[in-house]
Amino acid sequence: PFEVQWDASAAEKGGWSSFMLKEITEEPEAVADTLRERIHDGDVLVPELAALGEEALRDVDRIIVVAAGTASYAGQVGTYAIETWARVPVDVQLAHEFRYRDPVVGPNTLVVSISQSGETMDTLMAVKHARELGARTISICNTQGATIPRESDAALYTHAGPEVAVASTKAFVAQITALYLLGLHLARVKGTLSLGERREMLDELLAVPEKIRFAIGEHERVAELAHWMGSASAVLFLGRHVGYPIALEGALKLKELAYIHAEGFAAGELKHGPIALIEPGLPVFVLVPSPRHSEEMHRKVISNIQEIRARGARVIAIAEQADAAVLPFADEVIALPLAGKFFEPLIAVVPLQLFALELATAKGLDVDQPRNLAKSVTVE
Amino acid sequence: PFEVQWDASAAEKGGWSSFMLKEITEEPEAVADTLRERIHDGDVLVPELAALGEEALRDVDRIIVVAAGTASYAGQVGTYAIETWARVPVDVQLAHEFRYRDPVVGPNTLVVSISQSGETMDTLMAVKHARELGARTISICNTQGATIPRESDAALYTHAGPEVAVASTKAFVAQITALYLLGLHLARVKGTLSLGERREMLDELLAVPEKIRFAIGEHERVAELAHWMGSASAVLFLGRHVGYPIALEGALKLKELAYIHAEGFAAGELKHGPIALIEPGLPVFVLVPSPRHSEEMHRKVISNIQEIRARGARVIAIAEQADAAVLPFADEVIALPLAGKFFEPLIAVVPLQLFALELATAKGLDVDQPRNLAKSVTVE
Repeated sequence: PFEVQWDASAAEKGGWSSFMLKEITEEPEAVADTLRERIHDGDVLVPELAALGEEALRDVDRIIVVAAGTASYAGQVGTYAIETWARVPVDVQLAHEFRYRDPVVGPNTLVVSISQSGETMDTLMAVKHARELGARTISICNTQGATIPRESDAALYTHAGPEVAVASTKAFVAQITALYLLGLHLARVKGTLSLGERREMLDELLAVPEKIRFAIGEHERVAELAHWMGSASAVLFLGRHVGYPIALEGALKLKELAYIHAEGFAAGELKHGPIALIEPGLPVFVLVPSPRHSEEMHRKVISNIQEIRARGARVIAIAEQADAAVLPFADEVIALPLAGKFFEPLIAVVPLQLFALELATAKGLDVDQPRNLAKSVTVE
Repeated sequence: PFEVQWDASAAEKGGWSSFMLKEITEEPEAVADTLRERIHDGDVLVPELAALGEEALRDVDRIIVVAAGTASYAGQVGTYAIETWARVPVDVQLAHEFRYRDPVVGPNTLVVSISQSGETMDTLMAVKHARELGARTISICNTQGATIPRESDAALYTHAGPEVAVASTKAFVAQITALYLLGLHLARVKGTLSLGERREMLDELLAVPEKIRFAIGEHERVAELAHWMGSASAVLFLGRHVGYPIALEGALKLKELAYIHAEGFAAGELKHGPIALIEPGLPVFVLVPSPRHSEEMHRKVISNIQEIRARGARVIAIAEQADAAVLPFADEVIALPLAGKFFEPLIAVVPLQLFALELATAKGLDVDQPRNLAKSVTVE
């Protein structure tokens, strides 16, 4: 299999102010390198999945993703595309919960673990438990030869290069990319997408790195926002569909780095409770889905923005460039390139990562080594 | 079917300081009345499920619970027991997300909706969508003749009586009770639990009302805690297994009523990010699972308590009376009667409801009519 060559400099900061910033700028390559040698003649073919056999993949009738933290949000993003493309139900379970819930697992259950280091103890224990129950296992991992891929039936490596900052960034987009490759591979084996449909999705994936580069270009804009929000004691994030796990991830990054009470919600939950929290001046990030994909979802999110703004919140919308409808209602708009509906999260997460980095920096905190956290959680 | 007689006084406050407090004290009856006429000769038999036919129930190979807000947490609690008892995978999806995710649904998929009012618009639309996709549908609902049960193949009514306070309390425990009846009914039809095992679970359910009464007896103690925490700007909640959705529910109640940044986490997630938030004086509620059910989970939660306390957090443990191990490590312990592992949440949620009520009261807020919220969300 293809291996990215890591030289010693890859793990050095170079001229960057932090490993985290360096690693965010490496996201385009993390996606591109993860795609490499997995597209042949315009179709998806992930050689590493051959270890499982095509028949076994065809028989898969349920997928459980086991992961923790940021990797579990990558898993949540992946569920939408895999269900749509391969018509298999996909469920994300927190690795540290999986073992204790007496899960329903059989020989046609595929358990996909996600761990950047491949050494996350909770995830390893979940994979071992899944194998004992007779499931087939695939490891999505960023570290060659780590324990979890060795304990799995197959390994689908992400090629993000070494990630040094504690807060995961480039590994996250690489994990989503790997899940999409898995979903397209399954769709080919199961015959649930035509060649033309698979090609369309692969073209979208191949176009992601350039769009991430554009998002990184918004760094200065995001830094300004972060600086005037330096004293915020709480920040909310709203999203729908694939934007929902991105809202969760944006909130987690802020918690990890800036120690702020940040929480992500499915935008539809607002009326069922969280709207009580909205008060004047509260910053709320809203991931606005493209109206090209669902006019209805777009309209509902715009309506959410109006509701929270009517209560005085400060709305920062992350929307596609062509979305003029959002402009009159948001205080700030971060405009991103157009992308297919499953591909928006790979781009939209970038400004949220940069925001957490800049807000922590504005507070004088060490973004590479946040308090209380370790890079890999190798204990239970 | 059995119908609880509601007279006009049931919807009046009587001598209570708030509808919410009145409704919390009605929780024992909410559970007992929901069980009534569904246990025959010591076995579960829910007559309303006959509408679906035993064969259809036997063929169910996947359950999707659709709900929003508190009802979705009831659904999350239910997944553990239903999976364990009936060996069917159960997935909870937010009703407002379900329609937009192109869900994998077939004729053997059972979609169970949960809505106190039976008029929640997002949930109604999800049920209609599920029926269009060919799923069988069951409505768990507290309001006779409401729209959602009418649009479903079968209705399993909760008998909690009218709930007036905006924040749901007695409907929540009745919803979990209904899910457990459904799980046991399925286990009987599918033959996955023996009669003896079903009886054991039914005995546990029948014992719940008395244990809830005990928990309500801790009201004064909880009120004292709330009063010295009146100025807290944030509160965290940790749980594992069935305690995890209870942590989410405890946090939601605080958000709804006291407008505090409260968040619930799976305790195993701590090290993967949220521990960065822990700082001196932060109140953290921890739901401690009984060591009788899992020595390992208990030990891990005690270890979490030590970690957060070492960082200065103020730990309020909710534990069973016999659990002496928790005493040296927690600042406060609310001790509850012993219960089977699936039945702890029905009891443990009570002090969290009382806490939210008392903290809001201490802040001078109207607990029955929190800002921005409606009792039933009948718009999308």
